[in-house]
Amino acid sequence: MDLKSYVLNRAKEAKQAARAVASVSTERKNSALKNMARAIRKKAKELQRENKKDLDAAKKKGLSTAMIDRLALTPPRVEEMALGLEEIAALPDPVGEITRMWKRPNGMMVGKMRVPLGVIGIIYESRPNVTADATALCLKAGNAVILRGGSEAIHSNKAIVRILRSAAKKEGVHEGVITFIDKTDRQAIMEMLKLEGLIDVVIPRGGEGLIRAVTENSRIPVLKHYKGVCHIFVDRDADLQMAEDICFNAKVQRPGTCNAMETMLVDEKIARKFLPPMIRRLKKAKVQLKGCPRTRRIDGSIAEARDEDFHREYVDLILNVRVVKDMDQAMDHIAEYSSAHTEAIVTENYARAMRFLREVDSSSVFVNISTRFSDGFQFGLGAEMGISTDKIHARGPMGLEELTCTKFIALGQGQLRS
Amino acid sequence: MDLKSYVLNRAKEAKQAARAVASVSTERKNSALKNMARAIRKKAKELQRENKKDLDAAKKKGLSTAMIDRLALTPPRVEEMALGLEEIAALPDPVGEITRMWKRPNGMMVGKMRVPLGVIGIIYESRPNVTADATALCLKAGNAVILRGGSEAIHSNKAIVRILRSAAKKEGVHEGVITFIDKTDRQAIMEMLKLEGLIDVVIPRGGEGLIRAVTENSRIPVLKHYKGVCHIFVDRDADLQMAEDICFNAKVQRPGTCNAMETMLVDEKIARKFLPPMIRRLKKAKVQLKGCPRTRRIDGSIAEARDEDFHREYVDLILNVRVVKDMDQAMDHIAEYSSAHTEAIVTENYARAMRFLREVDSSSVFVNISTRFSDGFQFGLGAEMGISTDKIHARGPMGLEELTCTKFIALGQGQLRS
Repeated sequence: MDLKSYVLNRAKEAKQAARAVASVSTERKNSALKNMARAIRKKAKELQRENKKDLDAAKKKGLSTAMIDRLALTPPRVEEMALGLEEIAALPDPVGEITRMWKRPNGMMVGKMRVPLGVIGIIYESRPNVTADATALCLKAGNAVILRGGSEAIHSNKAIVRILRSAAKKEGVHEGVITFIDKTDRQAIMEMLKLEGLIDVVIPRGGEGLIRAVTENSRIPVLKHYKGVCHIFVDRDADLQMAEDICFNAKVQRPGTCNAMETMLVDEKIARKFLPPMIRRLKKAKVQLKGCPRTRRIDGSIAEARDEDFHREYVDLILNVRVVKDMDQAMDHIAEYSSAHTEAIVTENYARAMRFLREVDSSSVFVNISTRFSDGFQFGLGAEMGISTDKIHARGPMGLEELTCTKFIALGQGQLRS
Repeated sequence: MDLKSYVLNRAKEAKQAARAVASVSTERKNSALKNMARAIRKKAKELQRENKKDLDAAKKKGLSTAMIDRLALTPPRVEEMALGLEEIAALPDPVGEITRMWKRPNGMMVGKMRVPLGVIGIIYESRPNVTADATALCLKAGNAVILRGGSEAIHSNKAIVRILRSAAKKEGVHEGVITFIDKTDRQAIMEMLKLEGLIDVVIPRGGEGLIRAVTENSRIPVLKHYKGVCHIFVDRDADLQMAEDICFNAKVQRPGTCNAMETMLVDEKIARKFLPPMIRRLKKAKVQLKGCPRTRRIDGSIAEARDEDFHREYVDLILNVRVVKDMDQAMDHIAEYSSAHTEAIVTENYARAMRFLREVDSSSVFVNISTRFSDGFQFGLGAEMGISTDKIHARGPMGLEELTCTKFIALGQGQLRS
């Protein structure tokens, strides 16, 4: 069978399964998820055997140690995968929730009810744990999932899918809720992206290149985020010790994440007092600093931050520092350079805190808290299907709710329009 | 200037205005809207003079009487436009609303705040009143709007935009919140649709051809509905008099609308009792009927409904009738033929009413009420920017809320991640 028909048939299978799974009871979805966790544990050996094929191929191809590490399904990672399935089973089911209901003058009750999206396409790279996580989230929210993982993890992914499908089926859930495109050809992605009407939304997870390619070629709505260029603004009325701790935490605690701070903006009124100890502490933690001219007047050893630096997501121990005239200039900087992921202000000034909160146009906006908290688990969503910096449908960390939409419902007693 | 640069510059102007209007106070937005209404009334003569140019051109081109009628800005229509602006001024401002806020174990408060979408592109045909309605809705929800109306109404649209911009400016609102693409070349639409990053969402309003062209060519998310193929299922436990009244209302009261019923599905258990008086009443109202074989056994004078008829949006006094085995068969029919706009069940059976409500996957699902109620005003949204049959972002009638998105906000006291 040619690639086009192969992908089309997989999507049709998913679409059919989506209608079935949309009305499966919460109890049955939860049993399926728990059974999947059991099956993953029981078949850990089989999983690791298949994973070894991927690891061997990766070594042969000369992939970086970091990439090989992300690929490895070590026993703790297999256990984590099983625990993840159980945690999602324990979350409340969003499907059927009536978020609001009101009465009209003619007696008709109108409301909004959460319903599944339908078929969710996930296009992702290397990490095989995404296969189980994404499947579990989609299933819990009543959706079918069509997965297209990277070639590096193909054996691991196929093994995980086989285990999950069979575990779902045993609990009476249509096995088509998990559909895997096992063609590693990039053309398979392009064929998927044409299937509007069969696939309802696509979520790409991986590097910027993959996400751009998906967005540019998709006829299906895409939920995505390219990168996290996050800012913290230290206001003139900040508690300077708090500001130092928050900025240090946002840069150093885990610099490789998308919610780490990349640029620190400092009000000129407190720059001379705030920056020297802050810079000392960052340098001690081996953070490489790049500064605006005024920052460099405070510490001449700091390299120059060029305009393009302010656009960069370092994902590393590197930080831009800029001294600004006031909050307005900080907000202008954010409007120009931010990737609309997460920005924070540190201040004790009520009016500025409220204005920053209202006016900064990013998916997460914080007062007096580290940008590192921009995360579905930290927010208490119980799960996370990536982060969206889009404005349509979902913004910020996506949990189960973001994998549903709402429909209008109306309950009448024979009302007619005149 | 070439078309590409022209459209790009208009979009840049809109983007700039969007940032300004996002934080304009509710009071100022309302004053601007009320001033727009006053200006429309004051300049009614000017408007009608420009409108006459469009009407003359339409007559010369030989457009149909119906199309010419839609184009005409009669005095009552001008007054309606002004009233529409005032009504939107009176609606609550969705921007800044915190829809939910909760506390995390570490004391951080996390919430979701409604924020404007940014720049909304409206691509529409003939009816010039859309220019004022769409602008008012976008502005009230804190957005900038970039409008591209059809060539038939170009003089009317330009006059309306001129009046609205100047009225906005007088109240201190950036006039760039209303940007009009006055190039009637179709290529202007294509240029607009490439401007992701400047335009945040596109809403096409018009015929299916326009909407398909926009959807297929857009890199920007599109909110749309193609057509309304709405169904009513008359269950075996329906109050037959109520069912007859509802079905009659849904077909006959205003057949030219997208929420009129196109296919009536009747449970076989009550078909012989329900159909004869229903058919008599519909025939008396000059409804042309097309039936399945079992319907035609009840009334041999009815024409045959072919498979393609069940896909059609008649927007006319024509109705398909099909006798079904039970609700499951009715729901299968809906899953196959519906455009996912609005479906209703008429029944006194509680379990089936609840199941239909949950399982039918359309943007509006009703119990014991005419499909004609599927409308932003009838639902009490206070306004309507068309209907979406998409699943992403907004489903069903779109009011002010649907022209916003939410961002996460978090209020902390110096919390750090460890």
